[in-house]
Amino acid sequence: MRILVTGGAGFIGSHLCERLLRRGAEVCCLDNFYLGRRRNIAQLETSAGFNFVEQDLLDRAALDALFARSGFDEVFHLAANSDIAAGIKDAELDLRLNQLTTLAVLEAMRAHRVSRLFFASTSAVFGEAEATLSEDDGPLRPISFYGASKLAAEGYISAYAHLQGMQAVILRFPNVVGEHATHGVIFDFLRKLKKNASELEVLGDGHQTKPYLYVGDLINAMLIAWEKSSESVSVFHAAGIGETSVREIAEIVVHAAGKSDTRIRYTGGDRGWPGDVPRFRYDIARLKALGWQPKRTSTEAVRYAVERMLANGF
Amino acid sequence: MRILVTGGAGFIGSHLCERLLRRGAEVCCLDNFYLGRRRNIAQLETSAGFNFVEQDLLDRAALDALFARSGFDEVFHLAANSDIAAGIKDAELDLRLNQLTTLAVLEAMRAHRVSRLFFASTSAVFGEAEATLSEDDGPLRPISFYGASKLAAEGYISAYAHLQGMQAVILRFPNVVGEHATHGVIFDFLRKLKKNASELEVLGDGHQTKPYLYVGDLINAMLIAWEKSSESVSVFHAAGIGETSVREIAEIVVHAAGKSDTRIRYTGGDRGWPGDVPRFRYDIARLKALGWQPKRTSTEAVRYAVERMLANGF
Repeated sequence: MRILVTGGAGFIGSHLCERLLRRGAEVCCLDNFYLGRRRNIAQLETSAGFNFVEQDLLDRAALDALFARSGFDEVFHLAANSDIAAGIKDAELDLRLNQLTTLAVLEAMRAHRVSRLFFASTSAVFGEAEATLSEDDGPLRPISFYGASKLAAEGYISAYAHLQGMQAVILRFPNVVGEHATHGVIFDFLRKLKKNASELEVLGDGHQTKPYLYVGDLINAMLIAWEKSSESVSVFHAAGIGETSVREIAEIVVHAAGKSDTRIRYTGGDRGWPGDVPRFRYDIARLKALGWQPKRTSTEAVRYAVERMLANGF
Repeated sequence: MRILVTGGAGFIGSHLCERLLRRGAEVCCLDNFYLGRRRNIAQLETSAGFNFVEQDLLDRAALDALFARSGFDEVFHLAANSDIAAGIKDAELDLRLNQLTTLAVLEAMRAHRVSRLFFASTSAVFGEAEATLSEDDGPLRPISFYGASKLAAEGYISAYAHLQGMQAVILRFPNVVGEHATHGVIFDFLRKLKKNASELEVLGDGHQTKPYLYVGDLINAMLIAWEKSSESVSVFHAAGIGETSVREIAEIVVHAAGKSDTRIRYTGGDRGWPGDVPRFRYDIARLKALGWQPKRTSTEAVRYAVERMLANGF
């Protein structure tokens, strides 16, 4: 099985490549190092089935050539700007890196008759929702360009699946934590403490509460959804068990990486930055029915991620 | 009140311009004549409050200049490729004409602090749905690039509304019929009969059944939704009353424009072309609650549209 993983040197992509290799797949890992890092895949580069290409998905000719020479059976499309706050500053960034990369992948798949696609989507397609969200729920009213660009990509995948006879699995990622993270709340806190261990500034009032999922549990969800789906378009939600507040995360990070007298200071307000969704809840019945269950609760995931990131030499 | 109507020389745009002028607005009608026609606005060009600009929305510099010199209060964004079948042939056509035009309008509005937007969306954002669809329903799984591009535009409008403090009214249009139509089933049948009055070829088995709405009733829906909405993003569905099959439409058109011996021939199959949604049903409770009610049923709308199109010298 020859699998293309786009964004393969990124946070989740690098964990996925490792797991696919362990299962005996031939993995072509594509990354342009926008957020991905060579060190995330350093330990994979000697594996027999691993092949890395530094390439930008928006270079359509290069992508076409890669598909022409590689004979891919399946594609996991994870390449994206996953930093929501960064995307808010430039309306075109997420359009290019999230939506247009997806269109490039879909066109290459169509041209080279590759028919199975996994797509990394996001809870942000929903915007601010009160209910416990199942996969078929609406409305979809994103409040960030990140959410809008991923919703756009979902729409195009749905249209391609119908028009070109492709089969797609869309998994809407929740907040995922773990080693190789390229941004996010734990990453930010660790970075801030590295600069100044005496004070940790927290954006918002610290009461933003979300379910966090450890990256290993997410990879399990991805592979179960991938293997057990046969519909034209299957959409899944994965989420951590329980929830963790930013206040708890700050305390866990300070405990693990701070000094005994590190002070935590809150800037106030109900969200860290415009476009941040303060709270959402996923119904994960669909993945549960396939046998998926996260091994770690949300707070255990945060604790373990901090440990692993520090052990990894953050 | 200075209003920009994009796609103002198109089918629905030209009817909207006329109505807005009658209500005393100053109307700037923008069109690039991709589907719009000069003759659709010929009778408006002498009106005092009417101003026409031939311009492409994707020319960002020209759009910026237009906004800079015009001082718009509101924007009705109708410009689009509304021909779903044409968009199927080229995945980038609807991306450019439906989504990227919307992003251009949103950016110009942001830059020039215009905060009210009406957006012409579509039932096609849903794809193939069985239920009676309310505005907040999911899933949104478009089966055409047209549906995907409009869904993408909805997502970006939602994000801009949140991030830039804009206020948007999104009305998902159903199948609309009337004079100035640029494509669609009645248009196709009339054109075919003009070429050959002895036989009318109908794509599919003729049992595709949809609710049709007369364009005048749609304009009423647009203006009621526009006036009575104050939320950040308001989404509405408008639909005709009852449904009309393609078979009925063929008979109405042949009766009005054919010869006594015109033969109707069906090609067979449950849909006319890939990407066509054979059937959908809208819940229109939200517009009804605002006092909207179509004056014509679906089949009356079809009959009246055929009459008006023929009277207009189709």
